[in-house]
Amino acid sequence: MPPKWRYGWEILPHSAHSPDLAPSDFHLFGPLKRHLGGMAFETEDDLISELRNWFDNLDVDFFRVSNPAGTELEVVMMDWLGKMLQLPKEFLFSESDKGGGIIQSSSSESGLMALLCARTQIIAKLREDNSELTKGQIIDKLVAYCSEEAHSCIERSALIGLVTIRILQTDENGSISGATLEAAVKEDIAKGLIPFYMGACVGTTTRCTFDNLKEIGPLCVTYNIWLHVDAAYAGSACICPEFRYLLDGVEYAKSLAINPHKWLQVNHDSTCMWVKDKELIEGAYHIDYYILRHKSQGQKMPDYRHWQIPFGRRFRSLKLWFVLRSFGVSGLQAQLRKDISLAKMFEKLVRSDPRFEIVAEVVLGLVCFRLKGDNSQSELLNKLVNDDRRIHITPSKVKDTFFLRFAICAKSTQETDVTFAWKVIEEMADKIFPRETEL
Amino acid sequence: MPPKWRYGWEILPHSAHSPDLAPSDFHLFGPLKRHLGGMAFETEDDLISELRNWFDNLDVDFFRVSNPAGTELEVVMMDWLGKMLQLPKEFLFSESDKGGGIIQSSSSESGLMALLCARTQIIAKLREDNSELTKGQIIDKLVAYCSEEAHSCIERSALIGLVTIRILQTDENGSISGATLEAAVKEDIAKGLIPFYMGACVGTTTRCTFDNLKEIGPLCVTYNIWLHVDAAYAGSACICPEFRYLLDGVEYAKSLAINPHKWLQVNHDSTCMWVKDKELIEGAYHIDYYILRHKSQGQKMPDYRHWQIPFGRRFRSLKLWFVLRSFGVSGLQAQLRKDISLAKMFEKLVRSDPRFEIVAEVVLGLVCFRLKGDNSQSELLNKLVNDDRRIHITPSKVKDTFFLRFAICAKSTQETDVTFAWKVIEEMADKIFPRETEL
Repeated sequence: MPPKWRYGWEILPHSAHSPDLAPSDFHLFGPLKRHLGGMAFETEDDLISELRNWFDNLDVDFFRVSNPAGTELEVVMMDWLGKMLQLPKEFLFSESDKGGGIIQSSSSESGLMALLCARTQIIAKLREDNSELTKGQIIDKLVAYCSEEAHSCIERSALIGLVTIRILQTDENGSISGATLEAAVKEDIAKGLIPFYMGACVGTTTRCTFDNLKEIGPLCVTYNIWLHVDAAYAGSACICPEFRYLLDGVEYAKSLAINPHKWLQVNHDSTCMWVKDKELIEGAYHIDYYILRHKSQGQKMPDYRHWQIPFGRRFRSLKLWFVLRSFGVSGLQAQLRKDISLAKMFEKLVRSDPRFEIVAEVVLGLVCFRLKGDNSQSELLNKLVNDDRRIHITPSKVKDTFFLRFAICAKSTQETDVTFAWKVIEEMADKIFPRETEL
Repeated sequence: MPPKWRYGWEILPHSAHSPDLAPSDFHLFGPLKRHLGGMAFETEDDLISELRNWFDNLDVDFFRVSNPAGTELEVVMMDWLGKMLQLPKEFLFSESDKGGGIIQSSSSESGLMALLCARTQIIAKLREDNSELTKGQIIDKLVAYCSEEAHSCIERSALIGLVTIRILQTDENGSISGATLEAAVKEDIAKGLIPFYMGACVGTTTRCTFDNLKEIGPLCVTYNIWLHVDAAYAGSACICPEFRYLLDGVEYAKSLAINPHKWLQVNHDSTCMWVKDKELIEGAYHIDYYILRHKSQGQKMPDYRHWQIPFGRRFRSLKLWFVLRSFGVSGLQAQLRKDISLAKMFEKLVRSDPRFEIVAEVVLGLVCFRLKGDNSQSELLNKLVNDDRRIHITPSKVKDTFFLRFAICAKSTQETDVTFAWKVIEEMADKIFPRETEL
């Protein structure tokens, strides 16, 4: 077998339904569109591109029997990545009875699924104690929590879930401490409300700060609050042992999501979500639909359609598989460390110019910075930089302080890109504050 | 310009951010992964494959400014397809102030978004009349409706939306009539409940039957019920003038979804959803998130992130564009008519064998059939056919009658595939009822 087949051959025979079924033999709405049989590939790249296209677009993977390889490779990839992240074994298919993971479309969908599962669980529990309670009476009392620096999707998931969300103020490190959460929870309980969900951030979107999982975690256990950890961006870095501490406390979480499409060289969409108790996610909105009954139902392999909002799904695990096998763990770690060292280099450049200040500790690949003084200058700088169109930067605002966010996560970014970007930024800053001006 | 560039060149310059920005110049979490600059393509197919891969995986298309071409091509494609379907102009961007469409991941997501928007709207309206009402008091009274033959995703969307769903019984044609809906609505209103959403089916998953939109529609207007039309499978056929009547009554709907990945030669995922009032979908769960503010906000082009569950999105409109341009309307119509005529051919084969019966009128490409008599024989037939593994068929059950579903929608399916499938089915039936047996 020539080397060019080494990726394809292991998976193909186990793809949709059976190796012998052509698209025309499969009589379901939604055909298999791309048939590899008989196609010739000049190079391995062609094969990979075609395979990826083909698998990525398979549209019959809503339960395991419709595409065994699709489900099973996903199960294995979620365990591979979980092990790379040194997740507690309760999150892994292979090392627990109840845990496991899924590739979702986005952190938003993951967070929404987590909140919905938490809601289903608390409603069931409260009704067990008092069967007279209506779901409306219950949701009027439910409270979810998140940081003021969290991604907007957490707040949005509460709106969709029709529960109250309380946005907690961060401390001087941009973090939610145990004390902050506990004070809010006690206050809400005193008001007769029912805390049930905490969306904690490991690496906030705003400025990559970290909620204190080690303090929050035990409290969530005490107060029976579903702890979901959104580590969309920063989670990837935790495959490096020196950054794994950022996830310390994740052992208290019931669910966790990271986005390999943000910082692990995987193409969008690829959000990896793990849960400690898959029955809670499978059972939350399970409908036994006749057309979809199959003989493997209830067996160890998951029917992922119950784990997600959409019904159909693509073969996304293959992207992860290609990346993990192409880069290897050490290759991915090298990319992360390269990006982080470039961020440190950019931080140094910013600190070398007295007109600028750094806004948050630079832990990973994000540098938050601003012109000293009023927001208006930094706002103008942001406008000038983006209007100039040589580079692009997004801003943010925390506690009324406006700043710019310089993130490094592209494989191709090198030192020259960083010095180039800094040159553009200084050039634009010169238009606001000529360099000779002492501030 | 050589012909091989004819697809790429029109779109490329308007893709992510700016033609001059390399991935390394774009400083956001989640880089642009695949950079076309400097890549060489030997053939047009290579280019298309690469482009599709590239665009399909662009991960920064959550609002228009991050990828103008992504949003704008989607706007144009939704109007193209809307016009092919002869949708009322209220659903089109170019012919109305308020209407428009989006490509969602699935019918499930479309139906959920529709139900959530309807819920948001009715809650707002009821609170306008009585500001004391809590959301819990309201949802305890809300009722959604769908057919017993609808896809399970409609029922699931109600579970997620935390509202009661009433499953309506179909008539002898597998259809929900106006009388059935009105009786249920009146009964529920008499009980003090609030009907607010109807998920109507144009082509049920079970046996491709059709709810009576022309009767249901005016009732939904009268009773202020959000009518969402799920035409996931059958909607595609409506690009043929002779089948457009199936969508008659859609003018009463507030939203509509069809799946081009089911029967319009587009790869998964590609669910096209239209709404008559985009403010209702944009405003339902809109959060003004600082990092995402941009100067084009509130302009005519949509920020699609508000229209969907996930936050990020891929460049799915390109798949639609390739297909519409490659096949053309007449090419797609020819495929649909080919599939439908093959279904009629299969129906004739079934009717020619006295052991079998047809379960529902064959309108499009789905033939529902069974062995006469007890369910057990048809169940055994289904098992024998699928265990044999030469073809694959899914079963269903309506009003306790079990039957098999033979769907034709693959481009490659030809007469020989149909006769082959029928040969397999007859062979398996022979094991249950030898042909000489008179029934």
